[in-house]
Amino acid sequence: MTRRYVITFGCPDRVGIVASIATFLAELGGMIVEAAYHTDQDTGWFFTRQEIDAATLPIDVDELRTRFGEVAARLAEHSDWQIMDTASRRRVVILVSREGHCLYDILGRVASGELDVDVPAVIGNHPDLAPITEAHGIRFHHVPFPPGDRSGAFAAVRDLVEAAEPHAIVLARFMQILPAQLCERWAGRALNIHHSFLPSFVGAKPYHQAHQRGVKLIGATCHYVTAELDAGPIIDQDVIRVGHADSVTDMVRRGRDIEKVVLARGLRWHLENRILVHGNRTVVFQY
Amino acid sequence: MTRRYVITFGCPDRVGIVASIATFLAELGGMIVEAAYHTDQDTGWFFTRQEIDAATLPIDVDELRTRFGEVAARLAEHSDWQIMDTASRRRVVILVSREGHCLYDILGRVASGELDVDVPAVIGNHPDLAPITEAHGIRFHHVPFPPGDRSGAFAAVRDLVEAAEPHAIVLARFMQILPAQLCERWAGRALNIHHSFLPSFVGAKPYHQAHQRGVKLIGATCHYVTAELDAGPIIDQDVIRVGHADSVTDMVRRGRDIEKVVLARGLRWHLENRILVHGNRTVVFQY
Amino acid sequence: MTRRYVITFGCPDRVGIVASIATFLAELGGMIVEAAYHTDQDTGWFFTRQEIDAATLPIDVDELRTRFGEVAARLAEHSDWQIMDTASRRRVVILVSREGHCLYDILGRVASGELDVDVPAVIGNHPDLAPITEAHGIRFHHVPFPPGDRSGAFAAVRDLVEAAEPHAIVLARFMQILPAQLCERWAGRALNIHHSFLPSFVGAKPYHQAHQRGVKLIGATCHYVTAELDAGPIIDQDVIRVGHADSVTDMVRRGRDIEKVVLARGLRWHLENRILVHGNRTVVFQY
Amino acid sequence: MTRRYVITFGCPDRVGIVASIATFLAELGGMIVEAAYHTDQDTGWFFTRQEIDAATLPIDVDELRTRFGEVAARLAEHSDWQIMDTASRRRVVILVSREGHCLYDILGRVASGELDVDVPAVIGNHPDLAPITEAHGIRFHHVPFPPGDRSGAFAAVRDLVEAAEPHAIVLARFMQILPAQLCERWAGRALNIHHSFLPSFVGAKPYHQAHQRGVKLIGATCHYVTAELDAGPIIDQDVIRVGHADSVTDMVRRGRDIEKVVLARGLRWHLENRILVHGNRTVVFQY
Repeated sequence: MTRRYVITFGCPDRVGIVASIATFLAELGGMIVEAAYHTDQDTGWFFTRQEIDAATLPIDVDELRTRFGEVAARLAEHSDWQIMDTASRRRVVILVSREGHCLYDILGRVASGELDVDVPAVIGNHPDLAPITEAHGIRFHHVPFPPGDRSGAFAAVRDLVEAAEPHAIVLARFMQILPAQLCERWAGRALNIHHSFLPSFVGAKPYHQAHQRGVKLIGATCHYVTAELDAGPIIDQDVIRVGHADSVTDMVRRGRDIEKVVLARGLRWHLENRILVHGNRTVVFQY
Repeated sequence: MTRRYVITFGCPDRVGIVASIATFLAELGGMIVEAAYHTDQDTGWFFTRQEIDAATLPIDVDELRTRFGEVAARLAEHSDWQIMDTASRRRVVILVSREGHCLYDILGRVASGELDVDVPAVIGNHPDLAPITEAHGIRFHHVPFPPGDRSGAFAAVRDLVEAAEPHAIVLARFMQILPAQLCERWAGRALNIHHSFLPSFVGAKPYHQAHQRGVKLIGATCHYVTAELDAGPIIDQDVIRVGHADSVTDMVRRGRDIEKVVLARGLRWHLENRILVHGNRTVVFQY
Repeated sequence: MTRRYVITFGCPDRVGIVASIATFLAELGGMIVEAAYHTDQDTGWFFTRQEIDAATLPIDVDELRTRFGEVAARLAEHSDWQIMDTASRRRVVILVSREGHCLYDILGRVASGELDVDVPAVIGNHPDLAPITEAHGIRFHHVPFPPGDRSGAFAAVRDLVEAAEPHAIVLARFMQILPAQLCERWAGRALNIHHSFLPSFVGAKPYHQAHQRGVKLIGATCHYVTAELDAGPIIDQDVIRVGHADSVTDMVRRGRDIEKVVLARGLRWHLENRILVHGNRTVVFQY
Repeated sequence: MTRRYVITFGCPDRVGIVASIATFLAELGGMIVEAAYHTDQDTGWFFTRQEIDAATLPIDVDELRTRFGEVAARLAEHSDWQIMDTASRRRVVILVSREGHCLYDILGRVASGELDVDVPAVIGNHPDLAPITEAHGIRFHHVPFPPGDRSGAFAAVRDLVEAAEPHAIVLARFMQILPAQLCERWAGRALNIHHSFLPSFVGAKPYHQAHQRGVKLIGATCHYVTAELDAGPIIDQDVIRVGHADSVTDMVRRGRDIEKVVLARGLRWHLENRILVHGNRTVVFQY
């Protein structure tokens, strides 16, 4: 794919926003390769995401940021915007425990080039997934979580994560609840996969809860991590049909296939700046 | 379809149940057209449903019930069984309010012969759906629900329903919470369609709740009515994908398409004795 | 919903199209309520659809058409555009045979106000569906199709359809193959529902074909009618899981639930000018 | 899971089959853990699959085979049956080319214990996937396929495959058409994943075909390999929604997620003897 600049922008809706941005880009000769717009009817907030063919612009990304900042300032007193350069490589740190299906899946996508990112570190509170990680040439850090006070362990995780300056921190069935300060520090960058169709079955053992309630579909939810458990902005969800013959073990096994796909989808959208968070909801510009 | 006797049977699992039932039927020359088995691993309860080609049996359904009762008694001290004759016509009473999509859908299926049942009465707490009901040649009863004490209204509904001796009482977006005594009286016969993916979004305005939580799929659930609101045994569920651009109004509109399909599916299974309730869960022998 | 003008526009892609259209609208004070863009990478064709809040424009729809025509002419020698006023009521004519599920479904949506259109006529080659049509206060025309030469029957259908000046002509399981001249006359206005996942199982008895091939999902396809049978631009498709226990009769019954939903979805998008046809493919701006 | 004997049996349907088999098992004290039945209405062929708790039987699997053979012989002149012992480990050989997503997925399932099988060999016509295979401790064989005569290469593949005596030969995006003799030799053991919703888009480049036709869902099909290309008995299929914004490249990427899940599901069912082939159709006893 050719190099692109990805503009994401949000401000209170009013007449002329699209015209201003589009005219700004057109005057520079910038070719819009993909564009999406949305206005939230409840809050009156306007969102847009635009991909510009970098080769059609006579200025570099820093200059684009400077000039776009002026446009943004004219459009609204308070706006929220970013310009991402697809040429700057994205870094992903993955947190795991013992269950490997989400990790395997991400590493497979990286190895095949489907997910074109660097994975500077995988961190596990158990060592089980070290061999497969290292087989992919990726550094695995084992940080044991002792019973009782876990603050030391979380400090170690924090240092390892932040040393990598990641664009995404993926909790790939990490099974440890992040302390509020880490949720705060990593807000908008930490993605979790929860093995239920949220808001059903928050917390521990969602498949057991699902089995007990006798639901006919089980689900998985990818969401941003916030201090309130399993309550952050939802990025994507999917479900799979189950029946009376499915034991909890069957549900665990079958649920993995949606967990890994939903997580991979959410991660891709996050890395492509397709997700705009607004309050506790997400706008996802999928194409 | 040729006439069939449908046996449903449940008892604590042990060696030899299938052999006893199958031998009993084979000795009568009964041809099993469809058979399904399940054992609940948590409770050790065995379930089966069998369809017998009535023409292959030398005895009538009453005699079959007598003799099968002897088999059942030999198999377990406490068993739970029923024999349904597909030649005896099924009656369905429908309770509605103002929203017509589920009613239209059921009446359309009845009119086309897809659902081969009698509908002796449709009862509404508003008169809005009388014309379409009467256009199908079906009697519509308007029972107004005054603010305040609703016990008189519910007594009227009860009398109308029970006069029809229905096999199924369908709450097709009825919007009134049945009192506990009616739930009790109609246990296992009253089906509700709830416009969410239960257990998410119990109670009023589930699409508003779903919109506010920012879910990416909305759902519908058909379940048996019990005294605890929206907590009865789930019969079927389905979902449809939504996105940030869907307003509550869009969700309401789009959700209708799954509500009506899920309700129709649940009703069909109920009428064909495909659903065996066990605690708060259902075994659904779909085929 | 407030009154809106819906602009659909397509031309060869180049820098500045969005800027021109957005600036034109902004200068008039027009508030864009919904906007979508797409460029086909194979042909380099640009597409957009925009909904403008009519109340924010100082000019009427005719004046808007005149002025937008000038913008369009400046943007490209050959462009393709339309402006639809949601205040002008849409007319739908429905062609049926004996199977009523799609007709029932559309009439139910019209009766409940979900589909806010006029249905000036339903035309059937059999009289079976006259009563339900007339119960909705809609005129039913029976046009018998004798064996042998059907040109007279088709001429009668043509006259009835065209007298209604419909925005959509819906073949709701009509079961007659339209002659090429009618396909031509009604190009882009005639929608068919085919009971398979096209391009699988073109032509007659698709459920029989599906059963024989042993597929594990059956489908339905809504498409524009063209002279080549079941080969027109696809608008929407959906599928439902089937298994070895489903007979052809089961497939017919279960398939209806997706046929009617897919057709209703396609019809809605068509009437809201959400579908732009390009060659034999469609761009569907769903939101 | 405790050790089980899995009986699969098929013969022309008649009264008393279930009784005979169930009585035979009950007299031995065998506990049926799972049972499923089906009669094909077109051909009158009866199918059953039963899982017996091995610990409840007083005889070993060889003795069970001998005695069950006598039952089978009494039931029909020509029947088709097998008894599989879950204690005997299953072997899977995987054939690949350059695309690794299906291989990664299977190896991940094996590594995590979800798929409890041996993989004695992975064979590739390109060496690309050797490192990941070897990282899992599995032997990779590179068999180059020169342009022109490929019979030598296929002979090498045949020898490598057959040396492993596999229960399943998985064509995990192998991209080479097996010669008819190999299809014959491996009938009922060779599974292919085709990247379309068959029978649509047989042969090469199905995503290109799908894109050109403008379908709104793309699919994947797992089927047994037969001499006629992509025409063998279908085991499982699934689809994913696509839109006008999806390029062929997007379809290729998104399709992988269903390819790998459908293939894994088919492989599991095959290894658990859940699939009974009858003519060109499959009976899949999923639970």
